[in-house]
Amino acid sequence: MKIDDNFYMKLAIDEAWKYQLLTYPNPAVGCVVVKDGKLLAIEAHKEAGLPHAEVNALKTALLSKEPNSLLKILENSSDIHEYLIKNHNNFFNDCEIYTTLEPCNHEGKTPSCAKLLSILKPQRVIIGSIDTNKVASGGIKTLEESNIKVTTKVLKKECDNLLLPFKSWQNKSCIFFKMAQTLNGMIDGSVSSQRAKLYLHMLRDKIDLLLIGGNSVRVDKPTLDTRYVKGKNPDIFIYSKNKVFSQNIPLFSVPNRKVIISDDLFKILDYKFIMVEGVYNLLDILKDKIDFVVLIVSPKIRDGINATNSLNIDFEILHENYLGDEKIVFLKKRD
Amino acid sequence: MKIDDNFYMKLAIDEAWKYQLLTYPNPAVGCVVVKDGKLLAIEAHKEAGLPHAEVNALKTALLSKEPNSLLKILENSSDIHEYLIKNHNNFFNDCEIYTTLEPCNHEGKTPSCAKLLSILKPQRVIIGSIDTNKVASGGIKTLEESNIKVTTKVLKKECDNLLLPFKSWQNKSCIFFKMAQTLNGMIDGSVSSQRAKLYLHMLRDKIDLLLIGGNSVRVDKPTLDTRYVKGKNPDIFIYSKNKVFSQNIPLFSVPNRKVIISDDLFKILDYKFIMVEGVYNLLDILKDKIDFVVLIVSPKIRDGINATNSLNIDFEILHENYLGDEKIVFLKKRD
Repeated sequence: MKIDDNFYMKLAIDEAWKYQLLTYPNPAVGCVVVKDGKLLAIEAHKEAGLPHAEVNALKTALLSKEPNSLLKILENSSDIHEYLIKNHNNFFNDCEIYTTLEPCNHEGKTPSCAKLLSILKPQRVIIGSIDTNKVASGGIKTLEESNIKVTTKVLKKECDNLLLPFKSWQNKSCIFFKMAQTLNGMIDGSVSSQRAKLYLHMLRDKIDLLLIGGNSVRVDKPTLDTRYVKGKNPDIFIYSKNKVFSQNIPLFSVPNRKVIISDDLFKILDYKFIMVEGVYNLLDILKDKIDFVVLIVSPKIRDGINATNSLNIDFEILHENYLGDEKIVFLKKRD
Repeated sequence: MKIDDNFYMKLAIDEAWKYQLLTYPNPAVGCVVVKDGKLLAIEAHKEAGLPHAEVNALKTALLSKEPNSLLKILENSSDIHEYLIKNHNNFFNDCEIYTTLEPCNHEGKTPSCAKLLSILKPQRVIIGSIDTNKVASGGIKTLEESNIKVTTKVLKKECDNLLLPFKSWQNKSCIFFKMAQTLNGMIDGSVSSQRAKLYLHMLRDKIDLLLIGGNSVRVDKPTLDTRYVKGKNPDIFIYSKNKVFSQNIPLFSVPNRKVIISDDLFKILDYKFIMVEGVYNLLDILKDKIDFVVLIVSPKIRDGINATNSLNIDFEILHENYLGDEKIVFLKKRD
């Protein structure tokens, strides 16, 4: 295997996908630092409010030289910025910094990464996707004005794929479809492991609205909360023509939650980040409205209700990770 | 992500899996070379008779220093060994060599890798699986007698998983089940892409026997050859109680092939490396006889015949790769 710009960018991409969706409303971004050929850091942005991928990677890289410095205990992005600016001692001058997205150029919850890099003066910054966000863009210009060599569009398609959720929630409502099944497409009953359920609760904590079919609510009597992660419980949209539901179904008793019962899907566009939890019949209805599918696959073959309806959809696999022993597959419908 | 022994071993493992089964009768092995912290080579053993993973990796590593040397054009393992021994100039003394399997200690089609390493004297050799093959084992002892530091059992389970096919064909007949399906488990018709078919023909070129169900032969009228790779065509075992087949079915006209029609599965044990091409009903019959499953998944949802029989099997995912836009998943039945 060739060890080149693509190789290091791929490491950054894979790291970023681990936190995909969990960075909402920020994009998932990964960053790799290579110093004179030595791989020092593979990091990602993990959650809004926490340091950007570049800051995490620069911190890890400098810690490889001074593992017991004060830097080790700094968590706040501003503090890390400040430390790096004061204590870099030209450490980064022979470093190559791979980042899946153009470093941000604006001061948001954290100071600008492009500004930080222009002070640390790495040998080269390698960028996958160009930032089209008007507020944050301009990072490349800032770097080049500081005479830092910039290489762009390395694994651009893969880096752009990483931004697909971000771009959809930035421009409009982001709607994704979450589904769980066995290897052979069996969908009934409790398919997923505890680890996958934990992940699902992390997603529910991030979204604004959870859409579910009326039949699922009647049959499964779900709670649809975030108890495993003690997170915020999303509002619920029950998609149903029949508006009558037993108020004993646990989801109605979750505090600080709005429950909408409607068959008018237009109403969900009041929300920004929407997860649909369903199976194939709901996917059939929503297939042209969703931005991507999150499929959790349990490596089992099981007898049971299979997906036997007449759906014909071609997907592109955006990425895959493991959730413990199970797979999480991010799929985008092909046009 | 932590950049440690596990990280580099994982790179070696992933590279080796790309050539899994294609190295028959040799094991799939990967090797990574890191020189003073710089990642120089990620290589694998690709086919029996070609250089071992270590030799490929040592060659790539030295080429990073002298990219235009004679070494570049050497393909034969003995020639590369000889070149490395004469021209290493202590290049490897500050190298760490990660190998998924204990370096071989015997001269087979190529000279011993352990012997080669003991001459090149790397700083450290990091090993995943210990070689239990009586002929090739003893590599660690050879290294330690040359005062080379050896670290063993790094990602041992993952490295042992990589050897699963090798161990099964070494000890007895290796029987694996190849199946193709869509995301939702649809199995009828032509599911796979041209790229997946190419891979299938590469597998057929390696195996000794291809087992297929009588019904598939009658319905699909297959050729079961290796025309895409111009390889050797395996013998065929048609598993069928009814022994009457039209001799116009193309598979009977493939030259240099024996076709067995039988319902006595014991007969297949005359062969060493056996692929079953089938779907769920045949898997149900053979599930306790096979060593692993190779599942090719096309990222589509399709209406059609689904796997709706009453199989209940739990698998462990051994590994996954991409075959173009499709997935190839190696599965092992859990006990």
